Amino acid sequence: MKITDVRITPVAVPDVPVLNVKGVHQPVFLRSIIEIDTDGGLTGLSETYGARRTLDGLRRAADALVGLDPFDLNGLARRVDAALPDAGGINAPTALADHKLIDVVYGAFEVALLDIQGKHLSRPVCDLLGGTLRDSIPFAGYLFFKFAKPAEQPGADLFGEVMTPDALVAQARRFVADHGFRSLKLKGGVLEPAQEVETMRKLQAAFPGLPLRIDPMGAWAPETAIALAQDLDGVLEYLEDPAPGMDGMAQVAARSPVPLATNLVVTELPHVFEAHRKGAVQIVLNDHHYWRGMTGAVRLGHVCGAAGMGVAMHSNSHLGISMAAMLHVAACTPGQTYDCDTHYPWVRDEVIAGGKFAFRDGRIPVPRGPGLGVKIDPDALARLAALYREQGVRDRDDTDEIRKYLPDFERRIPRW
Amino acid sequence: MKITDVRITPVAVPDVPVLNVKGVHQPVFLRSIIEIDTDGGLTGLSETYGARRTLDGLRRAADALVGLDPFDLNGLARRVDAALPDAGGINAPTALADHKLIDVVYGAFEVALLDIQGKHLSRPVCDLLGGTLRDSIPFAGYLFFKFAKPAEQPGADLFGEVMTPDALVAQARRFVADHGFRSLKLKGGVLEPAQEVETMRKLQAAFPGLPLRIDPMGAWAPETAIALAQDLDGVLEYLEDPAPGMDGMAQVAARSPVPLATNLVVTELPHVFEAHRKGAVQIVLNDHHYWRGMTGAVRLGHVCGAAGMGVAMHSNSHLGISMAAMLHVAACTPGQTYDCDTHYPWVRDEVIAGGKFAFRDGRIPVPRGPGLGVKIDPDALARLAALYREQGVRDRDDTDEIRKYLPDFERRIPRW
Ligand SMILES: [Mg+2]
Ligand SMILES: [Mg+2]
Repeated sequence: MKITDVRITPVAVPDVPVLNVKGVHQPVFLRSIIEIDTDGGLTGLSETYGARRTLDGLRRAADALVGLDPFDLNGLARRVDAALPDAGGINAPTALADHKLIDVVYGAFEVALLDIQGKHLSRPVCDLLGGTLRDSIPFAGYLFFKFAKPAEQPGADLFGEVMTPDALVAQARRFVADHGFRSLKLKGGVLEPAQEVETMRKLQAAFPGLPLRIDPMGAWAPETAIALAQDLDGVLEYLEDPAPGMDGMAQVAARSPVPLATNLVVTELPHVFEAHRKGAVQIVLNDHHYWRGMTGAVRLGHVCGAAGMGVAMHSNSHLGISMAAMLHVAACTPGQTYDCDTHYPWVRDEVIAGGKFAFRDGRIPVPRGPGLGVKIDPDALARLAALYREQGVRDRDDTDEIRKYLPDFERRIPRW
Repeated sequence: MKITDVRITPVAVPDVPVLNVKGVHQPVFLRSIIEIDTDGGLTGLSETYGARRTLDGLRRAADALVGLDPFDLNGLARRVDAALPDAGGINAPTALADHKLIDVVYGAFEVALLDIQGKHLSRPVCDLLGGTLRDSIPFAGYLFFKFAKPAEQPGADLFGEVMTPDALVAQARRFVADHGFRSLKLKGGVLEPAQEVETMRKLQAAFPGLPLRIDPMGAWAPETAIALAQDLDGVLEYLEDPAPGMDGMAQVAARSPVPLATNLVVTELPHVFEAHRKGAVQIVLNDHHYWRGMTGAVRLGHVCGAAGMGVAMHSNSHLGISMAAMLHVAACTPGQTYDCDTHYPWVRDEVIAGGKFAFRDGRIPVPRGPGLGVKIDPDALARLAALYREQGVRDRDDTDEIRKYLPDFERRIPRW
C-alpha cells in the first residue's frame, strides 16, 4: 500500500471574540484539512493549524509523501525532516501554532496515516495505539471573557459581552446546562488578578464540588502568581501556566499549594526532564498536534507517569477531525486522568459528515468506526474553504485583533 | 479476533560455563516458549526467562488472556496486573530474570500479541512499531572468561578454558573470524582488575579501531572504577556498570572520561529521570524482556533521546524467537546506535524452524516474514522441553554453580 496523493485545504471557521493575555480571537480561526489517498483506494484524514507557516510546511512536505507505505511512520519522519531542513526548533518567535514546525507537520500527517491503517484493518485508530483505557472522554467547560461579536463578522455570537465575574458565571451556567460539563476552566490573564480570583470564587459557589482551573498563560509575575496561588488554595484543581518560563514556573511551584499545569513550558520530551529536575510542573497538557502526533501524545503519557506528573489535554480552536483524534488519544494515554480542554463548544460550524459531536454529561464516546471514525462532508469543506478565500485572515494575531477594539492595548507578559 | 489458548513450555538449552562476578553459568539455561492461539487460527510466539518465578507468573496470568483481542495491549496490561496482585516491584532480591515480574510477564505476552497482529496484517512486526530505522542489526561479539565444560554436562564446549588475557584474545579472534563482529564486549568482574585492563589493551592491539566495552556488573568500588576508567580512556567505547547502585555510578560518572552504560541501575522509566538528575549514566541498555515488551523498548529509545542518553541492547542467553523480537526492536528504536549485545553465538541449539540465524559481518537482517518472521520447529521444542524435564535446574544461580568448581567462592559486590 502506497500513498498516491496528499491534498491540503485551508479553511476558515467563524469564531467569536474571546480574550486571552495576548489579545482577542479574530473573526475566523484557520485550520488545514488534510486528505491522503492510497493506491488501495483508502483515504486518510487529518486536521491541524491553518496559519501560514504550518500551511507552508505541510505543502512543502506533502509531495515527499507520495510512494510512502502508510505503516512506515519512521519513514514519514525521515521525509518530513528532509523536506523541512530549515524548520523545527522550539524557539520560533511566533504563536504556539507555528512553533515546532517539524513536529506539527509530522503529527498532522501521522494522524492521516493512522486513519488509513485503521481503515485498512477495519479497526478504530485506538486499537493501533494499544487499545482503550477508557471508552468515553470527559471534557472541561472552557470559559472565556469576551467581547460582543461585531455585526459585520461572519457567523453568530455566543453570550454577547462577558467581561465581569457575574457574566462569566452566567456563561458557565449555560455551558453546564447545555453540555453537562463536570469541570470548568477559565482562560485568565484578561481582567485584573483580583477580579479573576473573584470569578473563581463565584464559580466555586455556583458549582460546589466541580473541579476548577484557571489559565492566565503566563500573565502573572512569579511573586504575583505565588500570592494568587495561595489565595486560590482550596478553590483550584490546578493552576495552568501562572508565570512565564520554566524558571518562573519553578519559582511559583516551590511555594504554590496548588499543583501547576502547563502547555507553554513543556512542549517537547526534553522539557519533561528539565521540568522534573527543577520541580517546575505537576501536570503536562498533552496535544497530538504538536507532541508528534497520536503516537507521540500517547508516549507523553508514559513519560509523565515515569516523571510523577499528571496529564491533561490542551486545545486550540478546532473541528471534528481533530476532535476524533483527540478522543482516540485520550482513550489510550496512560495517566490522562484530568478532563480534557476543548474549544469545540465555541465552534458553530463543522467539516465532518453528520455534523458536530455532541457532549452528554460533558463526555463524548470514542468513535468505533474504522480509523478515526469520521468522514468529510464535501459541501461543508467547500463552504469553509470558500470562507478562507473570502476572508483576508492568513495568520493568527490576537494582539493585532484586539487593537481594533482597544487601540492602546499593550502586549506584555507577565502583565501583573 | 480473540485469544483462545495460551501454552507455556519451559525448555532447557545446553550452556557453557562462562563466568561473571556472581559466578558461572549452569550446564543449561532456561527459557519459556509461549504460543498463543486465536479463534481466527493464528498463533503468536514469544520467548522469555524460564526460571521458576517467571514461569509461575506466566502461568498465573495465562488463563486471564482467554477472550482478549490481540490488538488490546492495554487490556493485556490490565489482565496481567490483575492476575499478579502480589508481584511487580523492582527490588525482588533475585536475578535480573526474576525481578519486575509484571513487566516481564506483560512483555512476554505482548511479543506474542504483536506476532499475531503482524500475521493478521501479513506484515512484519516492525511495521507495527513505526517501521524500520535500519534493515539489518549489528551485534557486538560477547566475550567471556570461562571454565572448560565438564564432560558430564549436556552439549558441546566452546573454546575450553579461557582464564587469561591471551586466551580471551584467542576467543575474540575466533568470534570475529566466524561471525564478522565489528565491536567486542568483555564480561568482566572475573579476573583481578589489572588483568582485565591488560585484556582490554590486548584486544585493542589485536583489533585496532574496533569499539570495545567491558561490563564488570558492579564488581568495582567507585574509587576503583574511577581509576580503571581513567586507565582505560582511549581504549573503551563505553564502560558498563563499573560500580554498583545509582549513586555509585553517579560517583564514577563524575570523574570518568569514558561514558558509562547500564542494564542494572536503569531498568524502569523512572530510573531514567533519576539517572538524568544525578548524571549517573550516558547509555542505557534496552531489553524488551523487561522494558515492557517491544512497545516499551521502542519507547525507551524516545525517552533516552529526550534525556540526552544513548541506547544499546542487553542480552541474556536466548533462542531464536527472542532474537527475532530483538531484531524488530533494534530496527525501530530511535537512538539505538550501538551494536547490540547477544549471547546467541554461545548457544548451540535452537527452537525455530530452519535453525539458527546466521551473522554476516556481525549483522543479522530484520526478518521480513509476517509477524516476528519465525516458526517453531516442533521436534526441537520437544527435545528442549525433554531436556528441561531431565535436568534438575529450575532456577538460575551462578553462585551456587561456581561453588562446584571453587567451593570457597564468596559472592561480593563490589569485589575490588
Ligand atoms: Mg494553556
Ligand atoms: Mg550488563
